[in-house]
Amino acid sequence: MAKDNQFVNQIADIETDFPRWYTDVVLKTQLVDYGPVKGTMVIRPYGYAIWENIQRELDARFKATGHQNAYFPLLIPYSFMTREAEHVEGFAPEVAVVTVGGGEELAEPLVIRPTSETIIGEMYSKWLQSYRDLPILINQWANVVRWEKTTRPFLRTSEFLWQEGHTVHATEEEAMEETMKMLGVYKEFAETCLAIPVFTGRKTEKEKFAGAVATFGMEAMMHDGKSLQAGTSHYLGQNFAKAFDIRFLDKDGTHKYGYTTSWGVSTRLIGALIMAHGDQRGLVLPPVVAPVQAIVIPIAAKKEGVLEAVAALRGQLAAAGIRAETDTSDNSPGWKFNEWEMKGVPLRIELGPRDLEAGKAVLVRRDTHEKTEASLQNIAETVQKLLADIQANLLARAKERKAARVVPAENMAQLLAGVEGGNFVEAGWCGCRECEDAVKEQTAASARVLVEDGHAETCVCCGKKAKHTVLFARAY
Amino acid sequence: MAKDNQFVNQIADIETDFPRWYTDVVLKTQLVDYGPVKGTMVIRPYGYAIWENIQRELDARFKATGHQNAYFPLLIPYSFMTREAEHVEGFAPEVAVVTVGGGEELAEPLVIRPTSETIIGEMYSKWLQSYRDLPILINQWANVVRWEKTTRPFLRTSEFLWQEGHTVHATEEEAMEETMKMLGVYKEFAETCLAIPVFTGRKTEKEKFAGAVATFGMEAMMHDGKSLQAGTSHYLGQNFAKAFDIRFLDKDGTHKYGYTTSWGVSTRLIGALIMAHGDQRGLVLPPVVAPVQAIVIPIAAKKEGVLEAVAALRGQLAAAGIRAETDTSDNSPGWKFNEWEMKGVPLRIELGPRDLEAGKAVLVRRDTHEKTEASLQNIAETVQKLLADIQANLLARAKERKAARVVPAENMAQLLAGVEGGNFVEAGWCGCRECEDAVKEQTAASARVLVEDGHAETCVCCGKKAKHTVLFARAY
Repeated sequence: MAKDNQFVNQIADIETDFPRWYTDVVLKTQLVDYGPVKGTMVIRPYGYAIWENIQRELDARFKATGHQNAYFPLLIPYSFMTREAEHVEGFAPEVAVVTVGGGEELAEPLVIRPTSETIIGEMYSKWLQSYRDLPILINQWANVVRWEKTTRPFLRTSEFLWQEGHTVHATEEEAMEETMKMLGVYKEFAETCLAIPVFTGRKTEKEKFAGAVATFGMEAMMHDGKSLQAGTSHYLGQNFAKAFDIRFLDKDGTHKYGYTTSWGVSTRLIGALIMAHGDQRGLVLPPVVAPVQAIVIPIAAKKEGVLEAVAALRGQLAAAGIRAETDTSDNSPGWKFNEWEMKGVPLRIELGPRDLEAGKAVLVRRDTHEKTEASLQNIAETVQKLLADIQANLLARAKERKAARVVPAENMAQLLAGVEGGNFVEAGWCGCRECEDAVKEQTAASARVLVEDGHAETCVCCGKKAKHTVLFARAY
Repeated sequence: MAKDNQFVNQIADIETDFPRWYTDVVLKTQLVDYGPVKGTMVIRPYGYAIWENIQRELDARFKATGHQNAYFPLLIPYSFMTREAEHVEGFAPEVAVVTVGGGEELAEPLVIRPTSETIIGEMYSKWLQSYRDLPILINQWANVVRWEKTTRPFLRTSEFLWQEGHTVHATEEEAMEETMKMLGVYKEFAETCLAIPVFTGRKTEKEKFAGAVATFGMEAMMHDGKSLQAGTSHYLGQNFAKAFDIRFLDKDGTHKYGYTTSWGVSTRLIGALIMAHGDQRGLVLPPVVAPVQAIVIPIAAKKEGVLEAVAALRGQLAAAGIRAETDTSDNSPGWKFNEWEMKGVPLRIELGPRDLEAGKAVLVRRDTHEKTEASLQNIAETVQKLLADIQANLLARAKERKAARVVPAENMAQLLAGVEGGNFVEAGWCGCRECEDAVKEQTAASARVLVEDGHAETCVCCGKKAKHTVLFARAY
């Protein structure tokens, strides 16, 4: 028990110093490390394995909805950026610029993609000929670079990994349908795989993507009551189609501009996972994306037959498709319990001589710390069921928290009190930029999404008639 | 038949103009397109799907041999490059340099990784403490940039996708074992999945990786008798360990430098596939990596029940794990036959009203053009078997060609005649750089690998005693 405490003390207290808790956890569990260039991160094997699980789940969903993967170049001619006025305004300040290649000054500087609407638009304009070529439904898994001043691993880094879908459609309706469909895919994925219930909705003009007609976001509530933008889906109208001449010969014999969309999620989702489910002891990973779903730990490992039984048990679980590992290091069982708890492994399985004699193992859930015994005979089945229970429980817990921590506000004082208390706040908004800016300035909260069926009557800031009900929160 | 010819004529003749055949095929089958920046490529969905299949197969092999994936930053401080003398000499001339970030001139320029030994070495030096941490076995899937003057899609482009494994070991023996193990993994993968038999062996000093103690390569014979370096595995000794201070506390209580390796293959493998198996009609893709393994084409598609049967057949094949597609476009069957032949789909399945009546379908192999009939009842099984046959036949054919086109040479005239005739040439070499350079200059052939059990007695160039038997070839 003394060792327990000593170990847990390595992590800052989650309630009193959440930012340091986050940094402690991501570094000590070896999810990530700082790269040599300021603002960059190294995604270590334990963190990358989460990303691989996220990729597998999302990729299957993209393909099931008719998308194919492709790969577009990292380097974009600087002039491409300037073709869409809002886009260049939004992204030019944060690009990394290549000016030298092969030992020579380049005639035109190149930017490392901060996002790929421009270079993909250029290619689509070349590929798209006829209405028969539509829709174009392509996704790319890639790295992007955005020069950031304040960075934190997974949440905001100069380089991150993501996927970006880019589609072209014949009509506004189809493009809008795609935009909403992919927002729906993200939401279903977040709930099913990450066990994170999300708020989705349209973004305000201020918060939308540079170059979009409309941006729809999904926002996730973190442990501290702040919001994390976990994914966005953009309806781009004909903005990029006109800037890059994405046209097609329609059935009626005339050339028309296409309507485009783009949508993306990134390694930020790993940050969402950590901050949505983590607790005092460290990570709590949902089984669907956990690199290790069950860790088998030998008790009295030197006793005859224990290590063999531990290895056999792991094999049995692996054969059933469970991502199981063993810890046969020299550390004490107590040390291992803490270590794997900190790493957020959903299920711990303890196996010692007495268990073996009784033909059973001890199972301990990471989410509830509940301890049960299970017969070794059909243990894979038991573990499968427990993992499903844990996944469901994490979602249920997060849903409860989400429901309990949205409060209404009719004035700025209430709004401030709401976000200070770690809540999301629903409030009316007149629709003007001045009030949106004033809310940000006075409460440090921003408009996360417009609430679709909101009933607010007056603007929380100016008191005039509300045009929208807005979900406000402080955000990462 | 007229349409047949017309269609095939779109591709240059493979025997008389192989370079143009290659360009025609990669563009017309929509594997790839040129990017807007000179020397870059866009990997289109059909090409990227091949890469996904390659990745899946390789990744499983890396994991089965104990490696984990991670992700290291794209941008490397310029100063890192200079820490290993040979490395900077080899790579500095071809790097892309970022000098501006976030609107400001950077204090230190950053290079876009041309390979990651340096930045990964820096991280390993931080992570490695004790012999207990060894071996470190990490792989990364990533993009790299090398400024190239002469470029061709897949074969040599300024940016390409690859995997790079980077490992650290306690001893020279273990590191060398890893180097050879991964070369073996590549060779087995190339034969099993790509149906490409390869030559493997040690590279000469001139041809080795900049910074390696020894480089081992795998070389594949292309249709025109030239060699393509399809993968390399490097034993780095303590070169990078010393440059980046990769040290560990050994069991004996002293600090020691580790021994490192690195190994990689890239999207170049797609070029290898194209040039190893392609024929007059276009691509010939091995089933294991083909994006579409079987294409189902309706005959008399407007006749009752045909399209439904075609869709049902595709579903049946997909359910059996076969990557099957249908072509229900308005084009004629003849047009479709040519189109999908050009795209290299291993098996074509024709289904029309008469076939339906007889409860069968017509199957046509891409490799032999052999036509058979198969009962619709157990067609998935028949297709599986045929795909396995095609895979085996492609390998057998390539092996035959490989065996038939290696000739010996005792002097420069024979060497020149050999490579002019589209062969690889085995010849003796004294081991000196002057002779190696002379061979290159006089025959345009280079030393691909040292032949392990060679018996050449005299140097093909200077006539002195041979130190090695070398496999010479012209190379991509």
